[in-house]
Amino acid sequence: MSSAFQPVTPEITAQLEQIVGRAAVSTAQAERDLRARDQSFHPAHAADVIVWPQTAQQVAEVLKLANDHCIPVTPWGVGTGLEGNSIALFGGIQLSLERMDAIVEVHADDFQVTVQPGIGHKDLNAALARTGLFFPPDPGANASIGGMLANNAAGIRTVKYGASKDNVLRMQVALADGRLIDVGSRSVKQASGYDLLHLFVGSEGTLGVITEATLKLVPVPAHMSAATAAFPTVESAVEAVVAIRGSGLDPAALEFMDAAHTKMLREAEGVDLQDYPTLFMEFHTAHEEALALGIETIREICEELGAVHFRATTDTAERKQLWHARHHSYEIMVRSHPDKQFYIMDVAVPISTYPELIRYVETLKQERNRTVYLLGHAGDGNIHVEFPFADDAEYVHVKEMDSAIVLKALELGGTATGEHGVGIGKARYMAQEHGAGLDVMRAIKATLDPNGILNPGKIFADA
Amino acid sequence: MSSAFQPVTPEITAQLEQIVGRAAVSTAQAERDLRARDQSFHPAHAADVIVWPQTAQQVAEVLKLANDHCIPVTPWGVGTGLEGNSIALFGGIQLSLERMDAIVEVHADDFQVTVQPGIGHKDLNAALARTGLFFPPDPGANASIGGMLANNAAGIRTVKYGASKDNVLRMQVALADGRLIDVGSRSVKQASGYDLLHLFVGSEGTLGVITEATLKLVPVPAHMSAATAAFPTVESAVEAVVAIRGSGLDPAALEFMDAAHTKMLREAEGVDLQDYPTLFMEFHTAHEEALALGIETIREICEELGAVHFRATTDTAERKQLWHARHHSYEIMVRSHPDKQFYIMDVAVPISTYPELIRYVETLKQERNRTVYLLGHAGDGNIHVEFPFADDAEYVHVKEMDSAIVLKALELGGTATGEHGVGIGKARYMAQEHGAGLDVMRAIKATLDPNGILNPGKIFADA
Repeated sequence: MSSAFQPVTPEITAQLEQIVGRAAVSTAQAERDLRARDQSFHPAHAADVIVWPQTAQQVAEVLKLANDHCIPVTPWGVGTGLEGNSIALFGGIQLSLERMDAIVEVHADDFQVTVQPGIGHKDLNAALARTGLFFPPDPGANASIGGMLANNAAGIRTVKYGASKDNVLRMQVALADGRLIDVGSRSVKQASGYDLLHLFVGSEGTLGVITEATLKLVPVPAHMSAATAAFPTVESAVEAVVAIRGSGLDPAALEFMDAAHTKMLREAEGVDLQDYPTLFMEFHTAHEEALALGIETIREICEELGAVHFRATTDTAERKQLWHARHHSYEIMVRSHPDKQFYIMDVAVPISTYPELIRYVETLKQERNRTVYLLGHAGDGNIHVEFPFADDAEYVHVKEMDSAIVLKALELGGTATGEHGVGIGKARYMAQEHGAGLDVMRAIKATLDPNGILNPGKIFADA
Repeated sequence: MSSAFQPVTPEITAQLEQIVGRAAVSTAQAERDLRARDQSFHPAHAADVIVWPQTAQQVAEVLKLANDHCIPVTPWGVGTGLEGNSIALFGGIQLSLERMDAIVEVHADDFQVTVQPGIGHKDLNAALARTGLFFPPDPGANASIGGMLANNAAGIRTVKYGASKDNVLRMQVALADGRLIDVGSRSVKQASGYDLLHLFVGSEGTLGVITEATLKLVPVPAHMSAATAAFPTVESAVEAVVAIRGSGLDPAALEFMDAAHTKMLREAEGVDLQDYPTLFMEFHTAHEEALALGIETIREICEELGAVHFRATTDTAERKQLWHARHHSYEIMVRSHPDKQFYIMDVAVPISTYPELIRYVETLKQERNRTVYLLGHAGDGNIHVEFPFADDAEYVHVKEMDSAIVLKALELGGTATGEHGVGIGKARYMAQEHGAGLDVMRAIKATLDPNGILNPGKIFADA
């Protein structure tokens, strides 16, 4: 498709200015460079022009103009992507949603909020604090809601509250040809026609641009507890994950950290962890009494499955301290390897195969004689492998290991990406993961974006 | 499209026999009549031939044959549909999944089960009992899993556990051209390409035929409690619904019944209910102590909001008795009107507009001077209006009221169908509900089923 793309001429720039206003179009090198890369190691590529629409109608008109002239359009949120999802690989227009960051309406009785796509989820939750409600998905960085929906971002609390796809009810989407459509419904139940909502969620801006979204909110939990448990083996830790999920206690977080990682945290900053595979847990309940009962059940489960160490608390300060190592593990890791960069990869598998995946990573690590840290959302079967590397030669090694781990995850019935999305980096695995399903995705892409202007080079390896 | 459909000739029947075996093809009038209607009032229409495939490959081959010869194919589960979803409107082949009813594999550690589409959800849960896990969606009748997924069926426990779409991870689907694809993943987290899984869920067999599904299971709750609360007004009942959802107590059922309905149940069978709008609630927890605490909170909420009557129990026998009226409301209603038939309609709205919808139904009922009962999954904003009628003239009245209520629900930001699906009956509202989104649905339909052979006449009013 790319061969047919047309350049952004001064005439096009003038027309863009007509649509969004002169102050909302820039060809300045600094603005283009600022949005030329995300938080991954995918090579930077600057767009030809940055456009900041302020309304859905403007987004639609920009798309129509681009489509009529076969100019690529890459949506941009805030640049926290981890797979090059927002890099303007083929130049053209970078459509920044940064100025569409309003809360349109809080529907408190419906446990919903309607927002523009550019608002950060942390900013949204800060603004919602007075309502006693919050939007649960939290990928860590202050990603924009539009970016989170476009990539189906998830994070630590997915095991209880679901990923972005589970926390959205309705969206307005601008299509390549300039139509604006509404998908989903503010009714939490809907059995009315095709589920276009979930077709656009996770489509990474390749089918349309999200211009507004109505999100599900949940009550801020009245009481929270936390626990950590160290296990002699990965297998026993995963047995505990299964038993905890089976207990009906509905953990709000169920995180795994391997022994290499806990050791590094302890040695680097004296974090109170043992050199064993460790689970980090959080529980949310409506009653404090229920919290204490839950903790006792969890302790019994962990001890029965051979836990060598168990700590739990319902105290807020102690809970934060207990989770400190998990929440700051990335910073501590970076500080403890001042001469290294970090490549982080993301796969997910059925939980029953989690030990096998981790054993495979261990074997690879020994064969290659490399330092590797494992950190994962175990409750979801999601794992992030973190590779320190110093130079290009080491990076090549890391990428080879990355590829081997993705293929292993697929072999185990898993997915090439649990929460980072496909972007550039995972496109090469799509045929293997989806088989003929990938042809169906291509057919839908061709139907909705026949000129292939929307975020080209993403998801589909040959686009 | 229909004008191009070709008849089922003896040659086609012979080829069908080649694919599925002679014992799995029937043109007998009795077999065709048995599958000519569902549980709705949509007129019966018999297919020309019934085919019972036994494998996914056979389903795919039947579809390919039908597609090559432009013969309509209507999938059939067990016939519990409520909108004519499985009626072979244009004749042709009725593809019955009745003989594909196996449990393929229980993945106990993954809280998953892989099944063929023909198994009933009650049969599935009976077979799963020994695992301590269950598949939560329950539309009432023993609908087939394939039918439930195709129609995104929901039911009483959706408020906690979600609808069918929330409880499926992966499906195998046969496309019109005979391709078999896998959609979704056994990994509970996936951010890998377009969400084809949810495109096929709820598409009512118009995009493909589900040949296998991996479902999410949840632990059978250790403890259950139940409560009923009667309120002076619909508004105060709905305020209680909002407050209960905001309490974090995560009800497993939150049902509404109007005063006319409770009165009828009391008068007909002496059911212990007051003549007030009433909520039926159920709670599931891991600890018995948590149950009692939860009940106290619920009692406080209901009494604060003016409940005139509150009953609660954690005792199993008493819980069943408390819910008896709700679970058997349909049978009691039918028994108490021996000379009537019942038309049941389904819409859903944002919960904040529930009182307005109910007031509208009340007004309509008075204007038309008709008996109407209201029963709904209030926690989801879903309402079923039940109309007794005696003859064709009354049926015309009922259909007019039905239409007025659907339009009101749409005006309130709701949907034409919360859980029964579009089928034949709701197709006329799709343009109003989805606007230009309906054109996108049509475009996807044309891409995946260019000859329009899959369940023609459903979802799209002009198909």
